[in-house]
Amino acid sequence: MVDYIDLDYIPDDNDLIVMYYVEKSEDCKDFQNACTEIAKESSIGTWTDIVTMSAEIANRLKPSIFYIDEPNGITKIAYNKDLFELNNISQILSAIAGNIYGMKALDNLRLLDITFPKDFIDMYKGPKFGTEGIRQLTKVRKRPLLGTIVKPKVGLNEIEHANVCGEAWLGGLDIVKDDENLTSMVFNKFKKRIEETFKVRNKIEEKTGEKKIYMPNITAPIELMKKRANFVIDYGGEYIMVDIITVGYSALQELRTYLDNKNIVIHAHRAMHAALTRNKKHGMTMLSIAKLMRLIGMDQLHTGTIVGKMEGDKQEVLEINEMLTKNSIEDNNLTMLSQEWDHIKPTLPVASGGLSPLHIPKLIDLLGIDMVYQFGGGCHGHPNGTLAGASAIRQAVNAIIDGFTLEERAKTNSELKAALKKWKK
Amino acid sequence: MVDYIDLDYIPDDNDLIVMYYVEKSEDCKDFQNACTEIAKESSIGTWTDIVTMSAEIANRLKPSIFYIDEPNGITKIAYNKDLFELNNISQILSAIAGNIYGMKALDNLRLLDITFPKDFIDMYKGPKFGTEGIRQLTKVRKRPLLGTIVKPKVGLNEIEHANVCGEAWLGGLDIVKDDENLTSMVFNKFKKRIEETFKVRNKIEEKTGEKKIYMPNITAPIELMKKRANFVIDYGGEYIMVDIITVGYSALQELRTYLDNKNIVIHAHRAMHAALTRNKKHGMTMLSIAKLMRLIGMDQLHTGTIVGKMEGDKQEVLEINEMLTKNSIEDNNLTMLSQEWDHIKPTLPVASGGLSPLHIPKLIDLLGIDMVYQFGGGCHGHPNGTLAGASAIRQAVNAIIDGFTLEERAKTNSELKAALKKWKK
Repeated sequence: MVDYIDLDYIPDDNDLIVMYYVEKSEDCKDFQNACTEIAKESSIGTWTDIVTMSAEIANRLKPSIFYIDEPNGITKIAYNKDLFELNNISQILSAIAGNIYGMKALDNLRLLDITFPKDFIDMYKGPKFGTEGIRQLTKVRKRPLLGTIVKPKVGLNEIEHANVCGEAWLGGLDIVKDDENLTSMVFNKFKKRIEETFKVRNKIEEKTGEKKIYMPNITAPIELMKKRANFVIDYGGEYIMVDIITVGYSALQELRTYLDNKNIVIHAHRAMHAALTRNKKHGMTMLSIAKLMRLIGMDQLHTGTIVGKMEGDKQEVLEINEMLTKNSIEDNNLTMLSQEWDHIKPTLPVASGGLSPLHIPKLIDLLGIDMVYQFGGGCHGHPNGTLAGASAIRQAVNAIIDGFTLEERAKTNSELKAALKKWKK
Repeated sequence: MVDYIDLDYIPDDNDLIVMYYVEKSEDCKDFQNACTEIAKESSIGTWTDIVTMSAEIANRLKPSIFYIDEPNGITKIAYNKDLFELNNISQILSAIAGNIYGMKALDNLRLLDITFPKDFIDMYKGPKFGTEGIRQLTKVRKRPLLGTIVKPKVGLNEIEHANVCGEAWLGGLDIVKDDENLTSMVFNKFKKRIEETFKVRNKIEEKTGEKKIYMPNITAPIELMKKRANFVIDYGGEYIMVDIITVGYSALQELRTYLDNKNIVIHAHRAMHAALTRNKKHGMTMLSIAKLMRLIGMDQLHTGTIVGKMEGDKQEVLEINEMLTKNSIEDNNLTMLSQEWDHIKPTLPVASGGLSPLHIPKLIDLLGIDMVYQFGGGCHGHPNGTLAGASAIRQAVNAIIDGFTLEERAKTNSELKAALKKWKK
């Protein structure tokens, strides 16, 4: 029998490390045994001893369970890098996040975090732009980037869509994005939307002297995504947006490779992530998904608002943002493993979902200014419409950056005043 | 305010229908309200009223909650087909299985099933082969297809791998497949493995006069998957295998399109599905994933063993297999919606995971003979090795098809006798 538990084992640069939360089932005799089943099924083992397994293979490739914290249900497993195709995220997940979720030996299993050693990091390009590249492109330096999502999510035609974008930009927002379920609809075709929206964009840029960004949602089968990305580039776009979870890793890796020699920022929307991440005992953490996205090379990623309509508590969102933006992360033995990012640039975190201008003081206090803040209903829900809603958002951010309260600035900013009146509880 | 609840609404051919299991949170006043939040966030609504929403858009596009079964936590929602890009699975999921999982208004949400109306069905090709095409290709007619997975999952080099395949085929199995985490490793490169394995395959076909199948795992970023599929075709392969969940929908749709004019069967491995499907209150069902896979066009799909090492109860597995293989499905108001498959061929179900020859009587009794049964450890774990293990499996199946018990046939089949001895509890 191969013994997978080795608490004296010290991982080195050859090991990919995974931290799991584990709940054994009645079928499994103890916690150690549950950890062993995970290590086996995710690497070289199976449910019975087999004649095709040699001692040489077992010694060379067996993972080491080197950390067990049974009271907290946590284990860490070191996997030899030879168990992986280094630049193939789908293969990596099929091993460390594959069959193991379905084993009868477990009731619950949650992948908490992964440490990628240098040989893996070297295989990936990470974000092309990073925070600094985005700051240069947008010329926004001393405040967060401000955006809206065109609402209703779907329903407007191409011209209406472009006009809503125009009002949002004119009101003072930097970014307008499509919603996650808007791609190419019978009443709003992708190409015509791009044409109309960039026409308006160019006018507003001229009028305001500010850089204005449109993030079209190119989510689709991969060849169509490439065509859509090229179409956006042809019309002078600098950003595309993609629904990372419903698109999947195989296409995302290809998209990043394909766009490498094109000057375009990738904005990652995480619709569906909570099907995997929300249950605290099962699935995988948003932190681990976010780590894969930085590695693959998403420039911007939705990571939670703390204060909005979507779940995600303060500690979790802060840790994800830290992981996305720092160069070096320390292991805390509970929620985060260590990570050295080397040449990989940061991913800019995006807070979006149920936000209004009233949330801005808290957002900046909690999450800072190296962020994208997006307001959908909190812009188009303004009593005087999108233009006023966008103005109120920019006024609220200016207030906080300048050291004033929203109420102080509302005295002279009528749009902000009306927003406070509508959404104040 | 738009009212999304309309219990008198009768869905028609213009509606895509989704059945959800819903648990409201403390934030949400009642079950009806929770259903409304789902209908809004998955279509045209947001958390506040907005000036850009018109009555015309709401009337044209708002989904109808037409069925509420609060005691069972079930609702059905009819979505106008114009809310979707019909042939874009990623977009469809970003709507009906996207942000809604993360809403604070819910504690749990599970997508149970989807009914695709004819306009959607018409946009998809479904499986190229189907059960009948696979029967023709393999020339196996009156018994289940029998396979093994090379074990250990990873660790053998290319020659060792090919030799294990050779023993399995020679022993009487039809199919050998790579495991879900074996792609191209430092010690077992994809191309060399293909070359060596097909060399052996051709010899064994000649020797036995039987059709022998190798299913190489091409899981990777999509362009590499295409290259690997072409390489397999060049060496005379008729099958490829892909890890559907870790690869994702955007690449899967492209792969099916790309392979349409090539004569190759797609075998779908579902590693990681249980991260989404296992919790009975959250995520989505394997039934709904399987439905997407038949629609996209996976010819074979792992759906559960009932008796093996992986979870998946009897009713669930039987319903998935029924959905994959029948042309017309009836709504049961709890676990399955109706579905007319029209031109879409069946997907052949695969049972794999923790199976040994001892399970064969039960498997055939429960799941029938229009199946692929795969035995990994249950083949290579035979005391006399892979060749004997494969023989024992074929002997066990022949016994049941011929109307004998395993014990009766074990009297004259020494390989089966040794297998019974090892695994009998």
